[in-house]
Amino acid sequence: MTSWVPGADASPYTPANLPYCVFSRQGEAPRAGVRIGDHVLDLAPALHDEVFAAPSLNGFLARGRAAWSDTRRRVQRLLSAQAGEAAANRAAVEPHLVPLAEVRLHQPIEVGDYVDFYCSLEHATNLGRMFRPDGEPLLPNWRHLPVGYHGRSGTVVVSGTPITRPRGQRVPAPGRPPVLGPSAKLDIEAELGFVVGTPTRLGEAAGDFADHVFGVTLVNDWSARDIQSWEYVPLGPFLGKSFATSISPWITPLEALGHARVAGRAQDPEPLSYLGRREPWGLDIAMRVELNGEPISAPPYRQMYWTPDQMLAHMTVNGASLRTGDLFASGTVSGAEPGQRGSLIEITWNGSEPIKLADGQIRTFLEDGDTVTITATAPGPGGTSIALGEVTGTILPSLPGPRGGSDRTSRVPSDRDGDRRRPADCG
Amino acid sequence: MTSWVPGADASPYTPANLPYCVFSRQGEAPRAGVRIGDHVLDLAPALHDEVFAAPSLNGFLARGRAAWSDTRRRVQRLLSAQAGEAAANRAAVEPHLVPLAEVRLHQPIEVGDYVDFYCSLEHATNLGRMFRPDGEPLLPNWRHLPVGYHGRSGTVVVSGTPITRPRGQRVPAPGRPPVLGPSAKLDIEAELGFVVGTPTRLGEAAGDFADHVFGVTLVNDWSARDIQSWEYVPLGPFLGKSFATSISPWITPLEALGHARVAGRAQDPEPLSYLGRREPWGLDIAMRVELNGEPISAPPYRQMYWTPDQMLAHMTVNGASLRTGDLFASGTVSGAEPGQRGSLIEITWNGSEPIKLADGQIRTFLEDGDTVTITATAPGPGGTSIALGEVTGTILPSLPGPRGGSDRTSRVPSDRDGDRRRPADCG
Repeated sequence: MTSWVPGADASPYTPANLPYCVFSRQGEAPRAGVRIGDHVLDLAPALHDEVFAAPSLNGFLARGRAAWSDTRRRVQRLLSAQAGEAAANRAAVEPHLVPLAEVRLHQPIEVGDYVDFYCSLEHATNLGRMFRPDGEPLLPNWRHLPVGYHGRSGTVVVSGTPITRPRGQRVPAPGRPPVLGPSAKLDIEAELGFVVGTPTRLGEAAGDFADHVFGVTLVNDWSARDIQSWEYVPLGPFLGKSFATSISPWITPLEALGHARVAGRAQDPEPLSYLGRREPWGLDIAMRVELNGEPISAPPYRQMYWTPDQMLAHMTVNGASLRTGDLFASGTVSGAEPGQRGSLIEITWNGSEPIKLADGQIRTFLEDGDTVTITATAPGPGGTSIALGEVTGTILPSLPGPRGGSDRTSRVPSDRDGDRRRPADCG
Repeated sequence: MTSWVPGADASPYTPANLPYCVFSRQGEAPRAGVRIGDHVLDLAPALHDEVFAAPSLNGFLARGRAAWSDTRRRVQRLLSAQAGEAAANRAAVEPHLVPLAEVRLHQPIEVGDYVDFYCSLEHATNLGRMFRPDGEPLLPNWRHLPVGYHGRSGTVVVSGTPITRPRGQRVPAPGRPPVLGPSAKLDIEAELGFVVGTPTRLGEAAGDFADHVFGVTLVNDWSARDIQSWEYVPLGPFLGKSFATSISPWITPLEALGHARVAGRAQDPEPLSYLGRREPWGLDIAMRVELNGEPISAPPYRQMYWTPDQMLAHMTVNGASLRTGDLFASGTVSGAEPGQRGSLIEITWNGSEPIKLADGQIRTFLEDGDTVTITATAPGPGGTSIALGEVTGTILPSLPGPRGGSDRTSRVPSDRDGDRRRPADCG
């Protein structure tokens, strides 16, 4: 399918892609759009449908799978060069095409609950090796269920939002009392997120994956490893994650990923039947992580152990209900090769193997001013490739401490901001 | 302060209390009210303020502390018998008093994020003794920070909502593969919840507790101990908690708790200064847990180790923002005495010490049809007592499994619903 929109067919945003966003032009209200080439189609006037005039996609997502398909077909027809009515469509639609350069992109969804999983065998194994060098790297439950936890939905922010370095408690050396200060081990997690459209009722498990999940978005689950390692027993990550999670402004519908679908990798032992994979929901998505513009990793999503249909089945098997706008993410995407790791703690092996950037700078974890950008592509029709947008963020220095005072108490030595460049230790 | 409302002065809902709710009468829209005696004052017409015509308190809560105080004073004046204008007030207000027996109570807030803490020294110690009998019952971080995690805000339900027994993975015996089935260790957690009114900006720590927190609500954080014990390493509780959390329909403003405020208990070691307690936010709230109408525990909130101002300071020290409607809860409230424990896992010592109810029935964990009700009182002015409402729920049997099939796989033995009355084992 080709498009009459200039440049679209040569871009990774053809009519076979069509990710959704919420956008605005200067002085205008945020509203829903679809990307075609380097333009955004203003959906409310193009489709004569006020659901797209809202500042989030939730109203549209709540309509369900049949409406998602129908809308996609209508937009494809309006943008297609082949249709018999192409000229008429073009005349009607062209006034509603906005150049991407003129728009600001907003948070596309009102997030309900945010759940983060831990679905990469390699990521879980790498972290197990680092933190439990003498034991089995995988805990006993890992191969039986997709391990996950709830994150903070109120701090899910759109790509481009600056990320203030979090402060928190960390332990300067094993057995020492904790100190308060800016995280010295600020990290990324390159992930794929899944956006729920169709809700469920409390007490009922979800049905088929594609009936509930509308699409995917790129996620960077920023993580402060030093805060996390001190706080996380026994109730899991909290402040080490809750300061910010960035998502792409683009929600790519599952229907655009038909050519990316692959069988999931083999699972041993075979999971319980409620986690059985009825359809291939492995996804051949090639991710790429850039630090200050330089590629540092290429995580392959298709190597993930647990597939997203399994995440959804597990998340709701206990009767937990879904809401429109719920977001669940895969956990860090790491492949089997060193160049495929989706976090700095793995890339630099907890800081023990620093990386050298092209300009000569050394990194273990993130410095103030660093910019991390995650992009991804997937197979499209006929050997083409579609793009999944990007999620980017730049680190700002910590703000002064709460209540304006020193971090000291009379009994516990404090940490100074200036100290945080020293080699970090593993909590 | 006395009231002209019949019966109010003899009740624990005097003008010194005035908890907020969202209510409706048959065929009417839900809207905000305040309780006085056995009546609900319909606030929108009584105060001529449309913010109270909404089906949640969030709009009012977002107005901030000065507005909360001003509204409370206006309502107290309208209901007071002492005011010079009492007769005129009564004539104007009486049409907007609705007998409690005629109303349905709704979820009072749109919950933003839900965080659950773990603030009782006795609860944490009891669980440590049960699950790590050979080690220190408290983990190293426990006395340095209020341990907490994010729960599922989409399954926070109002008192009275039936609770369907969750299904999930559990391990029938140590080292055996997991099976899927209804939880055999369904438990309660008697807690106090704190409702955020005034939001903060991302990257900034919260200021004073009473500037951000509007009030309190009773919480029952239902817990499936068998699911939880298998899933919770390393990322914390997930499906063992996410199926439901019940809250009271009544939000008691902090201003009603002035006579309940006490100094927090001694903390050793002294926490870092951001956790310093500037004001007394210990709360002398006496909780009571009933199982099928019979009192089984009397948890004393004033014995909690970490105070709610410390929870708020910790939750935001990393720059995580607050939203209006955020809910954070204390964790299970357990006192030093056996009769003061806020969960069945403690009361029955993980099922090893069953309790016998007055009708001769034996309980370790909850059976289908059981009803749990949590109430609480606090000191009011002049030796009186104010009530904090109640949170109640009744257990329904599990629904049939997802996808209609057996829970069996070819390799893993399955569990049958009929098996779940057998003695539960500790995962």
